[in-house]
Amino acid sequence: MATTQTLPQVDQSHKTALEPISTPERLLFGPGPSNADPKVLQALARSPIGHLDPLYIELMAEVQELLRYTWQTDNRLTLPMSGTGSAAMEATLANTIEPGDTVLVGVKGYFGNRLAEMAGRYRANVQLIEKPWGEAFSLPEIEAALIEHRPAILALVHAETSTGVCQPMDGIGDLCRKHNCLLVLDTVTSLGAVPVLLDTWKVDLSYSCSQKGLSCPPGLSPFTMGPRAEEKLAARNSKVPNWYLDVSLLNQYWGSDRVYHHTAPVNMNFGMREALRLLAEEGLEKAWDRHRSNAEVFWAGLERLGLVLHVPEHLRLPTLTTVRIPDGLDGNAFRLYLLNDHGIEIGGGLGSLAGKIWRIGLMGYNSTPENVERLLNLFEAELPRFRENVSFAA
Amino acid sequence: MATTQTLPQVDQSHKTALEPISTPERLLFGPGPSNADPKVLQALARSPIGHLDPLYIELMAEVQELLRYTWQTDNRLTLPMSGTGSAAMEATLANTIEPGDTVLVGVKGYFGNRLAEMAGRYRANVQLIEKPWGEAFSLPEIEAALIEHRPAILALVHAETSTGVCQPMDGIGDLCRKHNCLLVLDTVTSLGAVPVLLDTWKVDLSYSCSQKGLSCPPGLSPFTMGPRAEEKLAARNSKVPNWYLDVSLLNQYWGSDRVYHHTAPVNMNFGMREALRLLAEEGLEKAWDRHRSNAEVFWAGLERLGLVLHVPEHLRLPTLTTVRIPDGLDGNAFRLYLLNDHGIEIGGGLGSLAGKIWRIGLMGYNSTPENVERLLNLFEAELPRFRENVSFAA
Repeated sequence: MATTQTLPQVDQSHKTALEPISTPERLLFGPGPSNADPKVLQALARSPIGHLDPLYIELMAEVQELLRYTWQTDNRLTLPMSGTGSAAMEATLANTIEPGDTVLVGVKGYFGNRLAEMAGRYRANVQLIEKPWGEAFSLPEIEAALIEHRPAILALVHAETSTGVCQPMDGIGDLCRKHNCLLVLDTVTSLGAVPVLLDTWKVDLSYSCSQKGLSCPPGLSPFTMGPRAEEKLAARNSKVPNWYLDVSLLNQYWGSDRVYHHTAPVNMNFGMREALRLLAEEGLEKAWDRHRSNAEVFWAGLERLGLVLHVPEHLRLPTLTTVRIPDGLDGNAFRLYLLNDHGIEIGGGLGSLAGKIWRIGLMGYNSTPENVERLLNLFEAELPRFRENVSFAA
Repeated sequence: MATTQTLPQVDQSHKTALEPISTPERLLFGPGPSNADPKVLQALARSPIGHLDPLYIELMAEVQELLRYTWQTDNRLTLPMSGTGSAAMEATLANTIEPGDTVLVGVKGYFGNRLAEMAGRYRANVQLIEKPWGEAFSLPEIEAALIEHRPAILALVHAETSTGVCQPMDGIGDLCRKHNCLLVLDTVTSLGAVPVLLDTWKVDLSYSCSQKGLSCPPGLSPFTMGPRAEEKLAARNSKVPNWYLDVSLLNQYWGSDRVYHHTAPVNMNFGMREALRLLAEEGLEKAWDRHRSNAEVFWAGLERLGLVLHVPEHLRLPTLTTVRIPDGLDGNAFRLYLLNDHGIEIGGGLGSLAGKIWRIGLMGYNSTPENVERLLNLFEAELPRFRENVSFAA
């Protein structure tokens, strides 16, 4: 049937005739995304329902409660932000920084720098405490910096995705309370896979992602804010200078009022609900143990092959292993070969570690003995072809 | 195998044992989300690949080019933001407003108010031009406001989701050039379904969503920026005060450099690519005609039932019909009945139209003669039960 209106002419210059999508199956052993659990992918493909549907409201509460379990926190304000990890990262800063606040950022890798860069956008007085990429901060180093800078906020990365370092957390929260500052913690590469005890550690704000320890595709970023951070938000002199990530508005939707804020990414939240359900079914204890034990076998195997791990064992992340690329070996050529000939992705180095390390993730659904064996066999069989007569040992 | 580490005790207080997800099939005839095409849902459920994988980079270019086609624009900076519609809405303002800039917002519904609220967060001098909810602006009204306020930016809503009004666009872009301001246009409820001719209309920035005319679930928000807006971005005195939505950074990832910014929501982009592919396969001409002709049949049927449409026909959106709730009829009870007994969602009113209208969407995959018939039959059969002896006619 024709309409009563004359419709305008269409310019065809950008029209492209494409075949239906046909992406390959990859094994994602890079720094993330990691492979999603097939049950999570099935959940993603369900027919959407409305973001104000009573059944969706129920699902939101389930997601919030399971995020509290996963983070080990009682925080009321715990919810997935409608963006990937960096969105929730920015939300922790956007909601708490007021212009002129001193924000102290611990930089020991790429994502510490990102925190500093973001804090600057919110007109903070940004101060840095730095360590070489591959090390962690000691308590005395942190306390000295707190005393020197007297920050309103200390931002640290628990699991530094660029280096493979896990920052020891004992005592840092107490220092922050003693020196009257909020503690922001990046748990992007630890949540669901490595012990994260937010309330025990006295962390005030944290953020993570969906695509690593939670075995969901990227698209949502868990966010949590404790009572001390809520107080700072409530005492603001000005509105949060970021509408989409404004927790005071989001709280009206995710809290009991259910006031419409933005249209939720409904299907991603279907996936998140399923991912968190599967993690709770396994239990955090078993998930943590699985990641740790698979990582230990992997580390031993890599060292048996003569490879050198970038991080000392007591600081190593079970989720992400950084391996020094042997001298004279073309690390990028090896990565491309794995991707194109084996459908396997591993990561290269970022920033000061570019060209120097590989980053190999065994996260969530991908942390299995079979994957450890597959990777070790592949390194043993294929790496020599890239060695150009250079020995593995440093 | 046990690890060499002692793992901490887990607090079980927020652990919840849930059944696997079992959301119902709904027919979504509200203001959005609308039902997704089943082929798009299948694409969503594909195994993720890396956000820097050469195959993903190729897919990004395909999505960009098909968005240009859909918007009828040559804009280089055309990409889906990694959030729902409001994220790209905020991106248009965050990237172009500098503190003190005058931003003139046309408010004729809920989403005009949102634009004004967002612009304020970026420290603009916000000025409003207002019309009752259900009307549109005339050219002389717009020109008078441009002369009075001399704004750097005029922000308008093409398809106002709260009222069902389609703003006529002829001549507005010329006025903006004459008075030296940028034109921002909300096409959330028009893109892919109602003629949108961005370059012909001389629009400088626009944003939309995935879950309406594009037949994809919510989760991505198309964004586009033309050369005049790029110039304003390049001439900024300060960094964009929003890291996640900073187009100068995003351009390095989506442009030819492919510099890592944030981890892309890979699976949502699988869905977007499939949604845009299907739209191009149908062709914009046919999609526009389909929406218009189905809406015309729907409007005639509603009027035959004695219902009054809120918007005069020449301003009506084919995607979203606003129907006045007959006096004495409990509009919310009817909506809940449709949802719970028929699995059909229609929307209620927002803001000044709350309790006064229903909002009924026929968008993208849902705009079919069968759905029009289904809705008309349902209204005819079920509405009398909610009338309480009150006649339909006003």
